[in-house]
Amino acid sequence: MTTIATITMSLDGFVTGPDDRPGQGLGVGGERLHYWVFGGPWTYDGEHDFGGISGEDKAYYDGRTERIGSGIVGRGMYDAAGAWGGQNPFPGTLVVLTHRTEDPHDPSFTFVDDLGEALQIARQAAGDKAVRIAGGADVIRQALAAGEVDELCLSIAPMLLGAGKSLFDGAPELDLEPLEVHQSRWATHVRYAVTR
Amino acid sequence: MTTIATITMSLDGFVTGPDDRPGQGLGVGGERLHYWVFGGPWTYDGEHDFGGISGEDKAYYDGRTERIGSGIVGRGMYDAAGAWGGQNPFPGTLVVLTHRTEDPHDPSFTFVDDLGEALQIARQAAGDKAVRIAGGADVIRQALAAGEVDELCLSIAPMLLGAGKSLFDGAPELDLEPLEVHQSRWATHVRYAVTR
Repeated sequence: MTTIATITMSLDGFVTGPDDRPGQGLGVGGERLHYWVFGGPWTYDGEHDFGGISGEDKAYYDGRTERIGSGIVGRGMYDAAGAWGGQNPFPGTLVVLTHRTEDPHDPSFTFVDDLGEALQIARQAAGDKAVRIAGGADVIRQALAAGEVDELCLSIAPMLLGAGKSLFDGAPELDLEPLEVHQSRWATHVRYAVTR
Repeated sequence: MTTIATITMSLDGFVTGPDDRPGQGLGVGGERLHYWVFGGPWTYDGEHDFGGISGEDKAYYDGRTERIGSGIVGRGMYDAAGAWGGQNPFPGTLVVLTHRTEDPHDPSFTFVDDLGEALQIARQAAGDKAVRIAGGADVIRQALAAGEVDELCLSIAPMLLGAGKSLFDGAPELDLEPLEVHQSRWATHVRYAVTR
């Protein structure tokens, strides 16, 4: 059972700009992190639709998606994304890690308050596919520190954000092995095996 | 006249491990940053020779080297490298940025105490080739902040170091455009144009 952590960061290691919140999920200036997802510039206020992804970005995304059977996200990401309108947008079961498990939520999400339990549920649900830990940064750091991540799939957006939520601040020392790379105008996607 | 900044960092943005000093130029654990340079594991104490570079690492290195006509390094890097045994190992004139310009040094190095002057000398010396700012982190940050860098060529070593000298701590916000990528077991080399 493979567990994959996936996230987009700026070259200087930020997964959001400052002041990330619902309606502004990636913070100020953070839209640029996901240009690769939408095939180019988009804004929080404007229309943006997922159909724009193309080329190397799509090759990376599709290759990753077809491997995934279930997912885990942190409550911060769930809230910042506005609960994706109340519907799980990812393949299979989506487990939300939160201390407030009694909060109202759509039954297409599973709320638990412990990383070990989240992994157990997600691994059970994944069948012969992989579990994806989709962020945010703190959940990925917890899982890396617990030795529960087999692969780190990083999309590195071509910019220095200078401020925001840091992915690796407080992360453990780690050896990695690059397995694959895709590069587009909007991101360099590197798939790493965690080797120690 | 193109000015290129080149450096190796860990995925979490450190260009050395802790306690970098002469005889241990990349700090504790930092040897791994330059596995790509020597074609695999090496140690500060053991023999290591540059002939080991191969494959994608060599393709990246050779492509970069043939473009370069002169270089600039900071005094910290010069000292940490033990002045490369007193002989400039890089193509063309090497300008060392230092407040102690009167210190004894081999005439194959030029000592100046101002980044603008260093750039002027290096650009003059480069002919129709590019100037390379080879580090350390602080010189590259200064040059980025001054808007003097056209290309950032980053070799990203596959590991989290967790501590050491950070490349981007205090760097300006910046938009980049990926131009090229080479990936090996020991590094992902990305050439970026600085677009803002």
